Amino acid sequence: MLELITLGTSSGVPTRYRNVSATAIKLTQSKKWLLQDCGEGTQHQLLRTPLSLQQLDAILITHVHGDHCYGLPGLLASASLQGRKRKLMLIGPRDIKLFIDAVMQFTGLYLTFELEFIDVESVSVLDLSWVRVDRAMLSHRVASYAYGYETVPTRPGLDVVKLRNQGIPEGAVWGQLSRGESVNIPDRPDLGTIQGSDYLLPPPAALRAVVAGDNDTPECLRDFLRNASLLIHESTYTQAIAEKVGPGPQHSSARLIARFAEKMKLPHLVLTHFSSRYLNNPNAEQSIRHIQEEATSSYSGWLSLAEDFDCYRIDEAGKVLKRSSSEWLSVK
Amino acid sequence: MLELITLGTSSGVPTRYRNVSATAIKLTQSKKWLLQDCGEGTQHQLLRTPLSLQQLDAILITHVHGDHCYGLPGLLASASLQGRKRKLMLIGPRDIKLFIDAVMQFTGLYLTFELEFIDVESVSVLDLSWVRVDRAMLSHRVASYAYGYETVPTRPGLDVVKLRNQGIPEGAVWGQLSRGESVNIPDRPDLGTIQGSDYLLPPPAALRAVVAGDNDTPECLRDFLRNASLLIHESTYTQAIAEKVGPGPQHSSARLIARFAEKMKLPHLVLTHFSSRYLNNPNAEQSIRHIQEEATSSYSGWLSLAEDFDCYRIDEAGKVLKRSSSEWLSVK
Repeated sequence: MLELITLGTSSGVPTRYRNVSATAIKLTQSKKWLLQDCGEGTQHQLLRTPLSLQQLDAILITHVHGDHCYGLPGLLASASLQGRKRKLMLIGPRDIKLFIDAVMQFTGLYLTFELEFIDVESVSVLDLSWVRVDRAMLSHRVASYAYGYETVPTRPGLDVVKLRNQGIPEGAVWGQLSRGESVNIPDRPDLGTIQGSDYLLPPPAALRAVVAGDNDTPECLRDFLRNASLLIHESTYTQAIAEKVGPGPQHSSARLIARFAEKMKLPHLVLTHFSSRYLNNPNAEQSIRHIQEEATSSYSGWLSLAEDFDCYRIDEAGKVLKRSSSEWLSVK
Repeated sequence: MLELITLGTSSGVPTRYRNVSATAIKLTQSKKWLLQDCGEGTQHQLLRTPLSLQQLDAILITHVHGDHCYGLPGLLASASLQGRKRKLMLIGPRDIKLFIDAVMQFTGLYLTFELEFIDVESVSVLDLSWVRVDRAMLSHRVASYAYGYETVPTRPGLDVVKLRNQGIPEGAVWGQLSRGESVNIPDRPDLGTIQGSDYLLPPPAALRAVVAGDNDTPECLRDFLRNASLLIHESTYTQAIAEKVGPGPQHSSARLIARFAEKMKLPHLVLTHFSSRYLNNPNAEQSIRHIQEEATSSYSGWLSLAEDFDCYRIDEAGKVLKRSSSEWLSVK
């Protein structure tokens, strides 16, 4: 199952309850993970989770704004102080590389591992063994990207129940059948030639989730969302505040992204990157509740407003289960 | 009274209980403050205190290592997002300026206020209206400094009790006397010429505290500690671990700094910047308790091992009172 953990859900500045942007992506059954965006304090958030910097395969940055990348230097420094040796991939706009190079130069940052930088403009697909990552360009004040995460279907499984029911003896034969081979068992001539293809279960479907960077034009994601079970997208403002603030910051309102998701028949939508003016208190003048109500009034699918440390798990049928921090973290 | 608030007390990496280096300096009766060092997450720590970025007069960086400066970009960005207009001074090694310049260039960081950079090597004293700051060079892998904070004695006060006892009428006359003038009161010829100097109380003594950056040679501070009531100094290791680690990192052990403080007859010593291997648990194999015991065995003065959010208050007699977070912060 594919899991997405929202490590920071505030826009621009941290609050006492929400850190700035970062999302972890992993498979339920594995310790390997990816990090999308790395706002200041991301390494502090990780201290509250089982995620290990040693198991991090790649960091993907959506855009150069500080609330999405100022945690990078400290996270890289800490991985070095922990003695990481394994190469780490860093994918993002070219200025991210210049930013890190300058930090290394002026602050005496020495890495104990190779940091392989990949310019997000130069590659369209990144194939890791366990996940395939692609990207789509968004619309923001600076170049901004969404990343798509698609599981790599494993080899089809064997239909063990059928094998047992038909009395096909367990052993090396099962391995041959799992590779699709035809097999004769010398001391069981009664079974004839057994075709592996008759005992293979269909491989699990690929699961796809999209996590977007800052973006004022959800339509940019129209093609990119094909087959996606889940979209995590910014909803910095309600529509009223978005209009008051004006188009300068180039963010999405709850209404804008909710209407788009409805049009796309997107099954699951997670909103994040909330302006710090929205308080958790439902009675506040500007409350997270207002974003929720605005989104719900335009979108009829499964909706969640992310909090820090939420874990969104996509099962093999593409259904999303949310577990909040109290449900999966022993300490917070 | 002079207050020093330890906002981060861990060396190198943050832990779940200690952030990396930052210390706030202020007068009890004022909201203005200074920040010495700004490790990643310092702005997050500030969210738990009454300290406001709007009231921050200057930031002083001891050296360029990340655990002392990686919080700068985010803190400056947040001050801008809060609309700060007032000039902010940034004092530190020249590479700090180059670091911030590069961050601004590559991450689109725009400041709404003037950031006046002062190269720590080029000035020996910085006079603010309420505090005088000087600096001393230390010994570390990169150029590292201690900063001294000395209160500016206010104008001598009037001895109100004496004035009342002698029947000198309250009013404009008191103002003249407080300026040291000689006064005749027309309708009180009986009092003759009153000399202001007879009614002035001595100005309060200057209070001095020293907060050091990373340093393996406490002797560097010998002259700088003159008249200091308090020194906050790193004690990264116990002596045994310092010897195991070797001289490469150029840090102080508890024994080294405690022996120096004893020799200097320093009245109050606060240790900080502890290696993350030392746990708060007194029964751990490497415990903060071991640093405490080692320091106590060499130093007979007032000793404290800093925790995050400790407030050290120096009263007018130069005596230090420690208040931990639970004693002065309503929420933590």
